[in-house]
Amino acid sequence: MSLRSFFDPKSVAIIGASGTPGKGGYALIENMTKTDFKRKVYPINPKRREILGLKTYPKINKLPEVVDLAIIVINNEAVPQMIDECGSFGIKNVIIESGGFAEASERGKKLEKDVLRKARKFGMMVMGPNSIGIIDTSSGFSTPYVPIETVKKGRVAFVGQTGLLESVFIPLLRNIGVSKVVCMGNKCDVDECDVLEYIIDDSSTDIIAMYIEGIRDGRRFIKIIERSEKVLIVLKGGRTTYGARAVSSHTGTICGENRVYDALFEQYNIIPVKSFEELFDLVKVFISQPFPNGNCVGIITVTGAGGVTASDCCEDNGLEIASVSSRTLEKIREVYPTWHR
Amino acid sequence: MSLRSFFDPKSVAIIGASGTPGKGGYALIENMTKTDFKRKVYPINPKRREILGLKTYPKINKLPEVVDLAIIVINNEAVPQMIDECGSFGIKNVIIESGGFAEASERGKKLEKDVLRKARKFGMMVMGPNSIGIIDTSSGFSTPYVPIETVKKGRVAFVGQTGLLESVFIPLLRNIGVSKVVCMGNKCDVDECDVLEYIIDDSSTDIIAMYIEGIRDGRRFIKIIERSEKVLIVLKGGRTTYGARAVSSHTGTICGENRVYDALFEQYNIIPVKSFEELFDLVKVFISQPFPNGNCVGIITVTGAGGVTASDCCEDNGLEIASVSSRTLEKIREVYPTWHR
Repeated sequence: MSLRSFFDPKSVAIIGASGTPGKGGYALIENMTKTDFKRKVYPINPKRREILGLKTYPKINKLPEVVDLAIIVINNEAVPQMIDECGSFGIKNVIIESGGFAEASERGKKLEKDVLRKARKFGMMVMGPNSIGIIDTSSGFSTPYVPIETVKKGRVAFVGQTGLLESVFIPLLRNIGVSKVVCMGNKCDVDECDVLEYIIDDSSTDIIAMYIEGIRDGRRFIKIIERSEKVLIVLKGGRTTYGARAVSSHTGTICGENRVYDALFEQYNIIPVKSFEELFDLVKVFISQPFPNGNCVGIITVTGAGGVTASDCCEDNGLEIASVSSRTLEKIREVYPTWHR
Repeated sequence: MSLRSFFDPKSVAIIGASGTPGKGGYALIENMTKTDFKRKVYPINPKRREILGLKTYPKINKLPEVVDLAIIVINNEAVPQMIDECGSFGIKNVIIESGGFAEASERGKKLEKDVLRKARKFGMMVMGPNSIGIIDTSSGFSTPYVPIETVKKGRVAFVGQTGLLESVFIPLLRNIGVSKVVCMGNKCDVDECDVLEYIIDDSSTDIIAMYIEGIRDGRRFIKIIERSEKVLIVLKGGRTTYGARAVSSHTGTICGENRVYDALFEQYNIIPVKSFEELFDLVKVFISQPFPNGNCVGIITVTGAGGVTASDCCEDNGLEIASVSSRTLEKIREVYPTWHR
């Protein structure tokens, strides 16, 4: 089962579509139709006849076709029933953007279980709940319910358990070209393995940057990573006791033991980072620099203190500083500012 | 012997003053006279009659008074002779901004020794060589030979063995208020202890941020620190083998053993940092935040992943996360965005 229909559906139903600017169900349609005209978008809304120029439908089963993907942005209590309606109509792929599930309360946990049970019954794949979905700059498809500026196209896929990636960071990072952004939310069904499996075969992606709070199926994760040739950088949230406690009220994920993750990352050449800043810094290095052939570094600087702190930093991080031949030195001298020769 | 005349001289001679915009000996006079009108500035230049409206003098011994401070920006080979001339005329304080001394070559090392020997003979204090001197926002005095924008007045003193502080970083950091900047250069005479001793008594300074490559007199340093009540943050350059090698061609300082510095910093509540970024980050914390009463932290956030990574970061750094009373929670809820309550 490929996630293809999540990244490039031919037809989409928006359940919870709104005609009111400022509402999530309005921004979602605006984002999706702003620059992307090649797919059918069906807003579901019993009270409106059209939204942003699109004809609306009162119920899923009134749609003229079985859509590739349904996106749900309605009240949490109404979601399980909606899964039934989608499943009965034959829909196989759903993104639940609504919150109020396992991340929120005991009641939410029960609702999420209901959703999953029903989805399984219909052989349906569910991303979320508490997910803002997908941005795919290759297909042009975009599902967030928060207003999104144009995203620069490039070779980096961001995969995370947080809407931050799509709603906050991506617009801030205009100099990073993006292939895909996936916000998995609570991962009741579609998880990091499903997404990775899809993205490691994506020819538009060279670098995968992930924020995860837990890996559900370690063995499967390893199998996927083993056949990947892409750079994988991972920010693991919930490495500590306090962090794990915060995770439980964020996505309800079980964090697992930190040393297991450390070992996994080391063994499979996954680059671990400790903050979003570091994640984005490393991404910038990988998109702007070639792979080094070794651990030898050259430092060219006009400032003494800069050379000193850079040297300390190299040694702190296991890098060696190259010895430069006199011929190279001579060449560098030619282009150096005269006051510093 | 106080450094008072380095920070607030009544009269200054500029040896190597230039009438050519773009030259160091021109920028120096421009910086010094731009906003500061209360001291006598005497450019020394045998070929010009005036520079930037100031009457020039052909030689030191033609000056109408024995100046509090002489600043030397001439060719390295000519410096020892100039020290003789200054000393013979009775000048007791000199900043040598010229480079080409111990940091550059064996010849430079010899020149620096000559300078020091001559200075000692006259009972003269020398800052540098290879120093761009002082910025003092209280007295308004400014000696760098590179063009300097207006520096924001504040409570932070920067002390370093690098001109970077004055020429690059300070103008970039518009939101940090500065009391003093001191670039000590090669420290052939005036060193970190002399400068610290002066600054710990400076009522306009609360925080001292230092870049040092070595401490010459550890015992004296400790004595000074023991009676200081200011915050001291130190970036020690040359902590590693590579770093120490880079230091030898920067200021020629002997770096000393890293674990000795670590112990010193820990014992005397000196805050060690590893990069200029960290130095400036910490300075910003100290000028913008009150001292905490303990290690307990509260995190208020609307983003789950932000709360998780902040929690991990707290535990990584030995901080505890506070338990919040239900009354406090209730109050926070009142001002929270409705979509997140």
